[in-house]
Amino acid sequence: MKRLSALHWTILAAVSVLAACAPAPDRQSPNAAADPLPSWREGSARTAVMDFVTTVTDPSSPGFVPEPERIAVFDNDGTLWSEQPIYFQLAFAADRVRALAPEHPEWQSQQPFKAALEGDLETLSAGGHRAILEIVAATHSGLTTDEFAAVVADWLATARHPRFDRPYADLVYQPMLELLAYLRESSFKTYIVSGGGVDFMRVFAERVYGIPPEQVVGSMGDLAYEVRDGEPALVKQPGIFFIDDGPDKPVGIARFIGRRPIAAFGNSDGDFQMLEWTTSGSGRRLGVYIHHDDAEREWAYDRDSPIGRLQRGLDEAPARGWTVVSMREDWTRVYPFEGGM
Amino acid sequence: MKRLSALHWTILAAVSVLAACAPAPDRQSPNAAADPLPSWREGSARTAVMDFVTTVTDPSSPGFVPEPERIAVFDNDGTLWSEQPIYFQLAFAADRVRALAPEHPEWQSQQPFKAALEGDLETLSAGGHRAILEIVAATHSGLTTDEFAAVVADWLATARHPRFDRPYADLVYQPMLELLAYLRESSFKTYIVSGGGVDFMRVFAERVYGIPPEQVVGSMGDLAYEVRDGEPALVKQPGIFFIDDGPDKPVGIARFIGRRPIAAFGNSDGDFQMLEWTTSGSGRRLGVYIHHDDAEREWAYDRDSPIGRLQRGLDEAPARGWTVVSMREDWTRVYPFEGGM
Repeated sequence: MKRLSALHWTILAAVSVLAACAPAPDRQSPNAAADPLPSWREGSARTAVMDFVTTVTDPSSPGFVPEPERIAVFDNDGTLWSEQPIYFQLAFAADRVRALAPEHPEWQSQQPFKAALEGDLETLSAGGHRAILEIVAATHSGLTTDEFAAVVADWLATARHPRFDRPYADLVYQPMLELLAYLRESSFKTYIVSGGGVDFMRVFAERVYGIPPEQVVGSMGDLAYEVRDGEPALVKQPGIFFIDDGPDKPVGIARFIGRRPIAAFGNSDGDFQMLEWTTSGSGRRLGVYIHHDDAEREWAYDRDSPIGRLQRGLDEAPARGWTVVSMREDWTRVYPFEGGM
Repeated sequence: MKRLSALHWTILAAVSVLAACAPAPDRQSPNAAADPLPSWREGSARTAVMDFVTTVTDPSSPGFVPEPERIAVFDNDGTLWSEQPIYFQLAFAADRVRALAPEHPEWQSQQPFKAALEGDLETLSAGGHRAILEIVAATHSGLTTDEFAAVVADWLATARHPRFDRPYADLVYQPMLELLAYLRESSFKTYIVSGGGVDFMRVFAERVYGIPPEQVVGSMGDLAYEVRDGEPALVKQPGIFFIDDGPDKPVGIARFIGRRPIAAFGNSDGDFQMLEWTTSGSGRRLGVYIHHDDAEREWAYDRDSPIGRLQRGLDEAPARGWTVVSMREDWTRVYPFEGGM
């Protein structure tokens, strides 16, 4: 009964997210006259993106790229949705620690569980993606992948972001939804390549971003195939299998996609090597950093932030020909729920 | 120069493979009147496959499956191409040991290199997919993924199968090429899920099977991202990262695809769990074993074979509702080069 109810709320939440995007970008009928990026202000960032797409899709251009090679990769946290005041998956993990704490009195004195129980965000955030994966593994090993997906769906439907008092999945970036749809209409395959947990992201990536499970690459824990009373199941294990971050993002791309993307989008130094690998291939390439410089509508942080630190990327972007998107200047709106322009 | 020449031969080989399939199944224009499976003889196997596809693609059927859920997974060795007298990737690995032996005098007395140098197929085959991966890792660590792909392409273009005196990639099964094309025309995504090395298979899977790199799941070694003189590269490492076989086939499916397939095709007990996982989901499902019972046109082996052993699968297929395809009875031809029916 509880699972059905969670599913029900998830569907309602999905409908409300889609309804808020007016019109939902990936439902738009193809129309050459319509602006594919209505939330992108005229400027060098918008021009760089549109020039790139125009060139690689034009069969008469020397920069033309055949459809199968049109692979675009996106970081998730801070690139497709917000990541403040803590990674949303960490908020999930902390909520799960609180929910399960009565069965684990030892967590009262044991880190990082203690920090989760006390709401000590600084300690919690210090460990990055690995710490999140370890908390999720510790709290959910023994669950089947289906059971875990139901727990995540329930959380997404009920938890609310502290600043905006909305479901976390409402905090996706409208301009990036438009960009994803624009690329797909231009026969790109769009992938997430994120340090976030793959079992977490796949629960919402298809309904929120239009990115199916097989195009989500992320960090992952160990997994075992078991047959319980004749019913096969995939059961989450405590160990860590792969952390998809930094120099291991190109490794994840090689393993899970098997070809070099031609466009990469990130927001932190954890995405540096993904942009480097993508843009050092031959032919036309696009590397884009989303710069969080909008404290009013979202957050402003970069070089000194423990979450989403962007230092080397800012320093090297100009020389490498990467586009830096100013959320404040380049986007007419940030979230779908802000309404029209 | 050598690389260009290898590429040249690869393209020639590809053209000859395609030319031999008359007409190439995946280039066929959709035609409701044409038989999608001309090399499949009338009988229960053909009927099971066609009934399944008709049902899941019929919106008015209770067994209808929406397009995004139409995932079909195929083992490679013994299911899409032959695997005798040894796995083709093992033939590649042994050839590489011979080619590199002058630089490694220690291999003369060290297994499995000694077996490769002496042509001792029995010893070589005993270790299964893990042994192959270990030989490939030992002989190719330090190479970039691009360099390794060029070595594989060169081998595929020049090495010849001992029995048929043809390039190894000629030994694909014509009925399976038709089946892959038929499923894709029915809006399936077709995946390889194989114990073979992913870096090996991705070199030929797209041109031979029409399966792009991102839909090839396989075993894989460790990989490191390095920047050499400003040029980033992915470099093969000696360690083993993942063996995609037996109970780890469903694990590989969960990690790389992220949803449960509705159809699975294999030929050995190493595919048992993949068929079990696929067919135990709800709704219409299809599990198929290719049975090697045609010593004349291909090979005949099952319960006692060290390669592609099929024992539990044969025993349990009837009770589980899995289809067993007799290569001898159900296929009018095995290889594309056999010509028309």
